Amino acid sequence: MSEKIFPFLRWVRGYRRSDLNNDMIAATVVAIMIIPQGMAYAMLAGLPPQAGLYGAVLPLLIYAAFGSSPSLAVGPVAVVALMTAAAAGNVAQDGGPEFQLAALWLALLSGAMLFAMGILRLGFIASFLSHPVISGFITSAGLLIAASQLRHLLGADIGGRTVLEIVPSLMRNIASPSWPTLALSALTLGFLIWSRTGIARLLQRLGLGAPLARLLGKTGLLIAVAGTTLAVWLFGLQAQGVAVLGEVPRGLPQFGMPAVDLTLIQLLAAPALMIALVGYVESISIAQTLAARKRQSLDPDRELIALGLSNLGAGVSSAMPVTGGLSRSIVNYDAGAATPAAGAFTALLVGIALLALTPLMFHLPRATLAAIIVVAVLSLLDFRALPRTWAYSKADGAAMAATMGVTLFVGVEPGLLAGVGLSLVLYLYRTSRPHMAVVGQVAGTEHFRNVERHAVVTDPEVFSIRVDESLYFPNARALEDRIVQALSETPGLRHVVLQATAINYIDASALESLEAINDRLHAAGVQFHLSEVKGPVMDQLQRSHLLGDLTGQVFLTQFDAMQALAPRITEACLRTERCDTLLARP
Amino acid sequence: MSEKIFPFLRWVRGYRRSDLNNDMIAATVVAIMIIPQGMAYAMLAGLPPQAGLYGAVLPLLIYAAFGSSPSLAVGPVAVVALMTAAAAGNVAQDGGPEFQLAALWLALLSGAMLFAMGILRLGFIASFLSHPVISGFITSAGLLIAASQLRHLLGADIGGRTVLEIVPSLMRNIASPSWPTLALSALTLGFLIWSRTGIARLLQRLGLGAPLARLLGKTGLLIAVAGTTLAVWLFGLQAQGVAVLGEVPRGLPQFGMPAVDLTLIQLLAAPALMIALVGYVESISIAQTLAARKRQSLDPDRELIALGLSNLGAGVSSAMPVTGGLSRSIVNYDAGAATPAAGAFTALLVGIALLALTPLMFHLPRATLAAIIVVAVLSLLDFRALPRTWAYSKADGAAMAATMGVTLFVGVEPGLLAGVGLSLVLYLYRTSRPHMAVVGQVAGTEHFRNVERHAVVTDPEVFSIRVDESLYFPNARALEDRIVQALSETPGLRHVVLQATAINYIDASALESLEAINDRLHAAGVQFHLSEVKGPVMDQLQRSHLLGDLTGQVFLTQFDAMQALAPRITEACLRTERCDTLLARP
Repeated sequence: MSEKIFPFLRWVRGYRRSDLNNDMIAATVVAIMIIPQGMAYAMLAGLPPQAGLYGAVLPLLIYAAFGSSPSLAVGPVAVVALMTAAAAGNVAQDGGPEFQLAALWLALLSGAMLFAMGILRLGFIASFLSHPVISGFITSAGLLIAASQLRHLLGADIGGRTVLEIVPSLMRNIASPSWPTLALSALTLGFLIWSRTGIARLLQRLGLGAPLARLLGKTGLLIAVAGTTLAVWLFGLQAQGVAVLGEVPRGLPQFGMPAVDLTLIQLLAAPALMIALVGYVESISIAQTLAARKRQSLDPDRELIALGLSNLGAGVSSAMPVTGGLSRSIVNYDAGAATPAAGAFTALLVGIALLALTPLMFHLPRATLAAIIVVAVLSLLDFRALPRTWAYSKADGAAMAATMGVTLFVGVEPGLLAGVGLSLVLYLYRTSRPHMAVVGQVAGTEHFRNVERHAVVTDPEVFSIRVDESLYFPNARALEDRIVQALSETPGLRHVVLQATAINYIDASALESLEAINDRLHAAGVQFHLSEVKGPVMDQLQRSHLLGDLTGQVFLTQFDAMQALAPRITEACLRTERCDTLLARP
Repeated sequence: MSEKIFPFLRWVRGYRRSDLNNDMIAATVVAIMIIPQGMAYAMLAGLPPQAGLYGAVLPLLIYAAFGSSPSLAVGPVAVVALMTAAAAGNVAQDGGPEFQLAALWLALLSGAMLFAMGILRLGFIASFLSHPVISGFITSAGLLIAASQLRHLLGADIGGRTVLEIVPSLMRNIASPSWPTLALSALTLGFLIWSRTGIARLLQRLGLGAPLARLLGKTGLLIAVAGTTLAVWLFGLQAQGVAVLGEVPRGLPQFGMPAVDLTLIQLLAAPALMIALVGYVESISIAQTLAARKRQSLDPDRELIALGLSNLGAGVSSAMPVTGGLSRSIVNYDAGAATPAAGAFTALLVGIALLALTPLMFHLPRATLAAIIVVAVLSLLDFRALPRTWAYSKADGAAMAATMGVTLFVGVEPGLLAGVGLSLVLYLYRTSRPHMAVVGQVAGTEHFRNVERHAVVTDPEVFSIRVDESLYFPNARALEDRIVQALSETPGLRHVVLQATAINYIDASALESLEAINDRLHAAGVQFHLSEVKGPVMDQLQRSHLLGDLTGQVFLTQFDAMQALAPRITEACLRTERCDTLLARP
């Protein structure tokens, strides 16, 4: 067995007692978070609570075996749960068996895609999701997630997937909440927000050491869950209209391949890709941030493979799509997780909970889970990102605003697509206008510079142009347009020289443009020359017809070109200090 | 009235008698081509023959008023007709009134899109269609067009939109053709292929002057149409199973807005965009090629507006989507068209034909129109483009092969989408790996060069890296990965310097990456510095938090940075001729 295939062999061999200690402590803290969060995110995804718990068993064991980050805490996360709900809701009735099947196929498909991207080293595909798009998407997703929990927080019938649906539904139903539910929600929300720093501060004031106090400070979720469950049971709040979780099946997940439905799979392919990419981008940036703190680095391809296998594991164990979660990973890191074994221990603890604790969850109020979700997504909201990005770059700000607006008002998939599409269009727009400079000779030198910035001399029969970028399909036409324009503006033109100093690559579209330029200049009786073509570009051009068809020559330097095409002016300019006086411009 | 809005004012004022002469001759030759071709392409699009004739009336008048190319012959063309058939066939039953409505809306939508792109100066969107994609698409479309005419050429029931449908249908029905139809097709095809050069050669041999012979050589279509129509009428071939055109309504097109159906419009938006882009790219490259021969240039935005208005005109006059056609434009140019008035005269001649000649078309065999289509698309096929492109660049070859294969086997829209998608992915792949060089000091100088190519010295505590490209979202992560890797590989690292010599722009994603690099280095106790940042980039960074958060400094030059961060080695290296001996690498 090789470490390349089973990365866990790397750390298993040197595993020490102190590692075990650290990993167990971290696993316990993470398990305390992931049990309520997993159920909450399953509820957010429209799935039964056990789907979230199952998502914290097999996927975590798989990540521990194949992942390279000791700190990344894999499992159900809020944004992916929302995307699952949206994608499954597009193809099936909410909550039905077809809906659950769709969620499993989303896990399988996104898992297979991540795995394939890792094996084929296609991680760069994730760069389609530019930072403004991801950031805007996550803020809007956070808002939608919080809004979707209003039904549980208020105990009222508020539905919808977009702002346009949720707001009217809220208006209709806000006047008739379940008051006991609302009170419980308010208390739980208040407690959870306070507990994020409050418990640790309190324990420290009571004399506990800071590290232990910080660790115990993470028990806010546990206290909220236990407290509200107990309250419902003791005071019979269920009879007062407080909705509870109800029966969670006892025992470990059933394993097996979900039913194959090709139409369903086809419909889910695109959303699965989005889930895969969003999940991966979030996960890799958390993992890299935490790795850098220990001066470690991650192999992105290995992470793709590990996340892919984890999702395949989720798909065959009745779970839901998973990825690395921000808050749990930070807690895991802070609690001192030393190796990926911490994740495996978390899975064991969740497994024990599944075997022993599910009966205790019967009276857990849905409002508590909703409060947990709302508090978790508060950290996702970044409203200042939009003005900040807009101030930095209008194009990036526009992409972010489009992503946010479309996500809120149309839906999560259209939102991501709009953002990615607009980013690409704006990027191509920028790229389609490369910097081009008409160049002339600097007096007394063999140098050529931009005519607009320097006092240089040009020959009226020769048009020399320098393009400061590689020639690709987005900008191929720009050069064509510029040269055709020069041709129509310069009646005495006899030569065009393309100074290729900054061109590192010429793709087939640009090659075709150069051929077209050559043909058009030829038809107008003008010769087309190249100068200062780099070695690799010349090698590439040798494999084309261009050099054979070229009406002019390829010159080593721009000076050589001008010496051959306009010897009188070029030589004269080399000998004087002020060659702009040599030639009255026509 | 200004020339900016009505470009025809430019040439109308100086219009001379000789222009009128030239334009009338060109218009007559083009009309002789466009009348049969228009009906043929309408048949190809699945529309009644008059839709093609109407497409040669109002759209041509509009182009004459708004277009800038004197040579471009606008009207129905084969590839756009095929795309119309595919798009309308996806939303309506072939040939029904809903199908005709869809074709009108395709013209209106693509017209509105082209017009908007012209007004908003968004012509760069067409660069999404890289040359390999367009070229591969047109060859495959040509093959599909030729295959779709087999039913008319053989007089057999052969249907289908893709190779997978046409081939089995052909296999089933090839044994039972209509023999008279087949004979007529073979004769017509043979005559048309011969006539492309044969008539002119024959006339010259009979003593006619070369220019007149070439002009009369374009009458092949007219002879074929008249001859086969006469043959059908004289010999009663209709009774033998030769399908004829039947009644073509006499008179000019009815004008009016087609019925508004929002669902239909939504479904047609994407194919209309493709029709608009493919039509524009073809049209502009023909127009520019012909303009360059006269040392004229075209304004691409003006062409977008003119083509957009022409298509809007097609949509309100019961016609079909139009664009500039290759063969007719060349004929127009060769026949001496002097101004866009030639197009207006063509429209007048087609109008006269509609008023007077339609009864004569009753017996025109469909096989003749099919033969006209097949001969027209022969010039579109370029099978050598694929091996040529592949040899030049594997990435471009792959994009072309994908476009061709998907177009042939799945359909025209999926084919274009696959090609555009793959081009973008491969482009981003290339862009996502910018050239990066770790740099060190050249002995005895203040210069810094790539450590892999030059004998240079580096300080083990300082990692200096130069990125030879602007930082954009496709490549932002690459720098992050490279620096994190250096951090994990260099235990004694204290400083990272990014030499920004070649960076012209930093987008918001890359800015975020730089922030992340800064944070991660900070967490690992390493300072992050910048050197040689260009003025505009510095201005841009002033609008961000980066400069405030930066743990290190911004240095004017790389030498300044190294003098501050590693003064001993840098100074020593400046004074010696061989500084690689100064330092034993760790």
